[in-house]
Amino acid sequence: MITVLSGGVGAARLLRALRNEIDPKELCAVVNVGDDLVLHGLTICPDLDTISYTLAGLNNDELGWGLRDESWRVMKELHELGGESWFGLGDRDLATHLYRSQRLDEGATKTQVARELCQRWGVDIDLLPVTNDTIATVFATERGTLSFQEYFVKYHHDIEVRAITIQGATESRPTPEVLNALRTSSRIIIAPSNPLISIDPILQVPQVRELVRERRGDVVAISPIINGAALKGPADRLMREFGYDVSCEGVATFYDGLIGSIIIDETDRAFESAIRSRGLDVRVTTTVMADPSHASQLAKAALA
Amino acid sequence: MITVLSGGVGAARLLRALRNEIDPKELCAVVNVGDDLVLHGLTICPDLDTISYTLAGLNNDELGWGLRDESWRVMKELHELGGESWFGLGDRDLATHLYRSQRLDEGATKTQVARELCQRWGVDIDLLPVTNDTIATVFATERGTLSFQEYFVKYHHDIEVRAITIQGATESRPTPEVLNALRTSSRIIIAPSNPLISIDPILQVPQVRELVRERRGDVVAISPIINGAALKGPADRLMREFGYDVSCEGVATFYDGLIGSIIIDETDRAFESAIRSRGLDVRVTTTVMADPSHASQLAKAALA
Repeated sequence: MITVLSGGVGAARLLRALRNEIDPKELCAVVNVGDDLVLHGLTICPDLDTISYTLAGLNNDELGWGLRDESWRVMKELHELGGESWFGLGDRDLATHLYRSQRLDEGATKTQVARELCQRWGVDIDLLPVTNDTIATVFATERGTLSFQEYFVKYHHDIEVRAITIQGATESRPTPEVLNALRTSSRIIIAPSNPLISIDPILQVPQVRELVRERRGDVVAISPIINGAALKGPADRLMREFGYDVSCEGVATFYDGLIGSIIIDETDRAFESAIRSRGLDVRVTTTVMADPSHASQLAKAALA
Repeated sequence: MITVLSGGVGAARLLRALRNEIDPKELCAVVNVGDDLVLHGLTICPDLDTISYTLAGLNNDELGWGLRDESWRVMKELHELGGESWFGLGDRDLATHLYRSQRLDEGATKTQVARELCQRWGVDIDLLPVTNDTIATVFATERGTLSFQEYFVKYHHDIEVRAITIQGATESRPTPEVLNALRTSSRIIIAPSNPLISIDPILQVPQVRELVRERRGDVVAISPIINGAALKGPADRLMREFGYDVSCEGVATFYDGLIGSIIIDETDRAFESAIRSRGLDVRVTTTVMADPSHASQLAKAALA
């Protein structure tokens, strides 16, 4: 079994590539739920949805989020009513959130709902929310405390962050499925997701960081920083704001003590020896999953 | 000020007709919320919505419920996901429920939300939910306890009812606006809504029945039973099941002690003297609001 600590888009693409290399039944994802939100009464799990939509082949490549063949009737009407319409929810996408919210009201867990949806979509990788409890990544900024989606979507992550807190993490419990995956997997891969706001919320759930630390010989991280920048999102900006070098070496620092290996991009070959001198194994390959052959190369490196 | 105790469609049509006879600012509706439900995480208020959609001229005449120019993308997708799709929610209609659910989460009351929506739609009649607390009309049947919408929509009210309970009514509080309307209105009209499941939940909210009783000289009910049947819905069947005569006289019995007058249909003239002998004033007119002129006649009779 291979377990992938996963945020959204980067993790989704990695999982899609890994699925081509090994039996999908041997693959599971421990997914961040710190971005989850309740909006309009609906429980929305952006990372779980991004991954399952991508693995189902239903993802919207043009937008980079949400579902393909999407329509926007509800949002348009909500906007006309004067409702909160800054967080785009397509009509197809809304069906997912209605389904999940109803099932949670009926007493199902996020884990169960993820399995039900994956089954419906023919997704054969086990997607495991790190916890069934509510945790929330919040940002202290000059505009006050912002929720994840306020920071990310409303302000386009174009605002200085002073502190990141994962509310509820201390009291949350990892699911038994997650603990089992972390204990029994032959390898744990940290996806090229944002270390501070996609992976750290997973690590802050009790027992998870300790388990990853114990397994560090089998843990490999893929650097989301390539040639001094993130491909997407605010990982570079946040690393700078929190005092990390904006490089694959900074990523190695962030994961210090938790990983045995790191995969860095060919353009970052210059960092190889410095990282090796920390006692880490370094693999150099293309880490940009621009096309299937590159994604396959990265997947092979992660499994090697 | 004229106050109308209101259920859904019948009340909506009456209010639309009354608005043409008097200044809408002199008109308010105390609306049943016993049908309200939480489904897919959304708080849905069918009677409030039916009335406001109708008064806004947005109602769907073909369906008899919901909004005109409706589309069904979300429901179709939800059905394909295996979600609960027996309660039809159009895409436009969903925007209303998303708006309300978000505002309630933010701490607004149903009263505030109704005002916001009415303002947005240009509805100038004050629509007052009888309470901001949660009450729920439930049915004891051979298939167990059913919620209002399970009874009404899922089973098409084609099932024997043994008992009707308004859960939460005893602990609920009428809003100050409702108490004020009942105390100060020159007339209280009971709309031709279902006495047992649209009007009774209003009356079961503490203080409401007592206030209506005190004001009975100014209270006029419009019989929803015409020529031994209800125009729509299960009022006739339920009256029979609960031992009431299925006639305007049975309606007078149901409202015994609460009304000073009753408006009955021309086809029910035979009941006039029997009802008069109970000490009630009886007005005979057309009560079927089939076209604007008939609706206007009924409205004039209710205001006379």
